Amino acid sequence: MSRCWFHRMGTAPTGAHEMTVIEKCRLLASFSEEPDYITRTFLSAPMHDVHRTLRQWMEPLGMRVWVDDAGNLHGYYPAAIPGGKRILIGSHVDTVPNAGAFDGVLGVVLGIQLVEELAGRKMSFGIELVAFSEEEGVRFGVPFLGSRALVGTLDSSLLATKDKLGITVAEAIQAFGLQPENVMRAIVNPEEVLGYLEFHIEQGPVLESMNLSLGLVTAIAGQSRLELIFHGQANHAGTTPMNLRSDAVAAASAWVCQVEQTAKATPGLVATVGRFEVTPGAGNVIASEVRASLDVRSAQDNLRLASVTSLIEDANTICAARKMTVSCTQLLDQQAVFCDSGLVNALAAAMSRTGHQPHRMVSGAGHDAMIMQQRVPVAMLFLRSPGGISHHPSESVLPQDVDAAVHAGLAFLDSLEANHG
Amino acid sequence: MSRCWFHRMGTAPTGAHEMTVIEKCRLLASFSEEPDYITRTFLSAPMHDVHRTLRQWMEPLGMRVWVDDAGNLHGYYPAAIPGGKRILIGSHVDTVPNAGAFDGVLGVVLGIQLVEELAGRKMSFGIELVAFSEEEGVRFGVPFLGSRALVGTLDSSLLATKDKLGITVAEAIQAFGLQPENVMRAIVNPEEVLGYLEFHIEQGPVLESMNLSLGLVTAIAGQSRLELIFHGQANHAGTTPMNLRSDAVAAASAWVCQVEQTAKATPGLVATVGRFEVTPGAGNVIASEVRASLDVRSAQDNLRLASVTSLIEDANTICAARKMTVSCTQLLDQQAVFCDSGLVNALAAAMSRTGHQPHRMVSGAGHDAMIMQQRVPVAMLFLRSPGGISHHPSESVLPQDVDAAVHAGLAFLDSLEANHG
Repeated sequence: MSRCWFHRMGTAPTGAHEMTVIEKCRLLASFSEEPDYITRTFLSAPMHDVHRTLRQWMEPLGMRVWVDDAGNLHGYYPAAIPGGKRILIGSHVDTVPNAGAFDGVLGVVLGIQLVEELAGRKMSFGIELVAFSEEEGVRFGVPFLGSRALVGTLDSSLLATKDKLGITVAEAIQAFGLQPENVMRAIVNPEEVLGYLEFHIEQGPVLESMNLSLGLVTAIAGQSRLELIFHGQANHAGTTPMNLRSDAVAAASAWVCQVEQTAKATPGLVATVGRFEVTPGAGNVIASEVRASLDVRSAQDNLRLASVTSLIEDANTICAARKMTVSCTQLLDQQAVFCDSGLVNALAAAMSRTGHQPHRMVSGAGHDAMIMQQRVPVAMLFLRSPGGISHHPSESVLPQDVDAAVHAGLAFLDSLEANHG
Repeated sequence: MSRCWFHRMGTAPTGAHEMTVIEKCRLLASFSEEPDYITRTFLSAPMHDVHRTLRQWMEPLGMRVWVDDAGNLHGYYPAAIPGGKRILIGSHVDTVPNAGAFDGVLGVVLGIQLVEELAGRKMSFGIELVAFSEEEGVRFGVPFLGSRALVGTLDSSLLATKDKLGITVAEAIQAFGLQPENVMRAIVNPEEVLGYLEFHIEQGPVLESMNLSLGLVTAIAGQSRLELIFHGQANHAGTTPMNLRSDAVAAASAWVCQVEQTAKATPGLVATVGRFEVTPGAGNVIASEVRASLDVRSAQDNLRLASVTSLIEDANTICAARKMTVSCTQLLDQQAVFCDSGLVNALAAAMSRTGHQPHRMVSGAGHDAMIMQQRVPVAMLFLRSPGGISHHPSESVLPQDVDAAVHAGLAFLDSLEANHG
C-alpha cells in the first residue's frame, strides 16, 4: 500500500451521521466527469472526491483508511484483538456512462453502515471495506481492474493497456498520485481473510417479481458470447418466388426462435440475441446477410457449452435447408464461479433470522466477487432492483430493502463471530 | 411534341447495322453520369447521348424521331397506308445507380431490332417505339415519370417535385431543352393505338430455373408495403430470466417466421422482411425495439390484402403473448394490373409458333406497362435473367434469348397484321 491515513478521532462532516445509505449513494453520484449525468471511470478526477468523502465517513468510525496502488480505497475496522483475521466487504465505485447512483457504490456504503451500526463494538475479526477503483471496463475496455489487483492479475500487460486517448493504465495510476510499480503489494493474503462479502443491486427483475427484498447469490453464471453471420443471397423482393430464396433475415429469424425455445426449455439457462444487423436492409430486397450476436449464460458450464454447441448446430441445419451457410466466431467463454458454501449458508441463516426468505439465485451479471473468488471465499447478497432497472439514471433501491440488507449483514457478522470468535 | 426530326435518308453510323442488340445495349450503357459505373437518371446529361444514338439507329430504318416534353424519345415507323393505327413498343432508358446494361434499355433496342428485321416491309399499322425518360424513381423519388406523361398523370404537383439539389421536374425538363408546359401534349390517344408491348428482362430467377428463354406476363403484381415497430423492454441479457422478458428481437423473429410460412403456404403470394433494425442492438442487452419492413405482392389483390391483414394480426397475437405491443404503418397499397387478354393470347400464339413455350407468369416488379395500362391495352414479354441478377453491373441477357424475343416479336406483329390488316 502506498498511502496510509491512520485512524484519527476527528469529527465527521456535519450531518454525515444523519445521512441514510441512499442519501450517501446520491451524494457520491454527484461526483461525475459530466455535469448533467453520472459517469465516473477508472481514476478519473471525481474519484478523488469519492475517496475524500468515503474517508470522511470511515475515519470517524474508527477505521484506518488507505488507497492501494490500483486506486482501491480500503477502510480497516480493527478486530477486538490485534492480529485476527478479517472479513472483506466491498464493491466498486466506478460507473458506466450515464449511470445510476447505486450500481457498485451501494455495496461500499452498506459496508460503512454495518460498521456504523456496530457503534464501536469490536468483533473477533477485523472488517476491511474495499471500494474498488474499476469494475465496468469502460475506460480501458477491460473490466475488474480494481479486484484484479487484489488477486494479483493486474499484470504488466494490463498496466500497458491504453484508453482512447492513448493513456495507459499505469499512467492513469501515476496521474492519480499512486505508484503503478507497486500494484502487486495490493494482493490479499488468503491466510488473513475469512472471505469477501459483496452487497449489490440485482440489476434484474427476479426479486421484484417474487416480492422479495433480498436474494442470496450462490453462483455467478458462466458466459459464452458469439457472433453468427448468416450468408444468404440478395434478390428482388417482388420477382423471386418463395421457393427460390436464400433469405438471411428469414433464416436468422428461424434461428432466433430456436435460441429462445432452447433457453426457455432449459432451466438455469438464459440466451439472448441482442444484435441483428441486416445487409442490405432495404424493404424491397431479400437480405444477403445477417450478423447476429449470441449471449448464453448459466451457472452450469456443461449445460452452457452443450447449449451453445446445439444452437450452432441449429443454425447450420436451418441454413443447409435453405442452401445457405453460416459462420460462427466465439468471442468469450467464461466459466461460472461459485460462492463459498460456508459463507452462503451463514448468510442464509442470517437472512432467515432477520425475517427474510433466503432465496438462492444465480447472478447473470459479472461482479468483483467473481474475481475475488480466485483467491478467497466469496458471498454476495442482492438487493431488489425496482423495475429491474440498472445502468440508467432511474436505477434505484428501496429504503426497506437497504434496512433488510443492513439487518441481514449484521446477523451475518454475528454468525461469523460465533464461528470464528 | 416539341421537336420533330423528320425522316432523313441519311446513312447509319459506320457499323451500326452490324451491332447486335446486346452490343447496342452495352454502347448505351457507356453513357453514364459516373465514370466507373452505369448511372443515368431522369434527363441527366448522358441522356442526350442516348437520344442521339437511338436517333442514329432509328432514322436509317425509315423512322420519324421526336422527343416529347417529358423527355421520352419516340420513333415512328409508318403504316403501309397513312392514318392507320399504331402499336407502341417500348421501355425506359434511365437506370438505377450502379446499374446493369439491360434493365429497360433492352426493350427499346429490341423494338429497333424488330423494325430492322422488317427490312422496310410496312404493316397495316404503324410501329411507335418509345424510350421512356424515367421509370426507376431515383432522381425525384417518384417512379414512372416518362410513362405517366403518356397517360396524362404527369401533373403540376409532380412537375413541382424537387430532387436533392432542389431542382424541380419542370426545371429538369427545361434544362434538357424541352417545354414542361407542354407535357400534356404527350398523352396518347387510345383511339389510335392497338396496344403497348414491353420487352424486359425478368429480373428474377424463374425462367432460368425452368430453363426457358421467354416468359409471358399476364399481370403485374399489386404491392403492399408496411412498417411494423415491435415495442419490447430493454433489459440485461444476464440478469433477466426468459419468462420475464419482452424481447423485441425474439418477437419480431417469431413474426418473420410467420410471414415466410404464410407466403410459402399461399400460391401466388410473395412476402419479404428486408429491413430489421434493432434498438439498442448490443449483444448483452435484450432489445427494446425492432423496426421491420413488410413487402407483400400478388396478382390477386384480395389475396394480398387478406394476407396483410392476417400478418398484422399475427404480429399482434405474438406481441400480446409477450406483454408487448406492435404498431403498424401502411406505406403503399398498389393494385395489381392485368395485361390485355387479346394481346397476351396473340403473344402466346407467337411464342408457340416460334418454338417457345408460352409460360405465363406474374411480374413481381413494377414496369412502364403498369402505367400504360391505364390508357391502352398492354402486353409484356420477359427475357430470362441469368442468375436472376438485375440492378447490378453483372446483369446480363443471353444472345439466344434475344433471338427468341426477336422471333416471337416478329410473329406477334404478323398476327396483329392478320387481325388488323
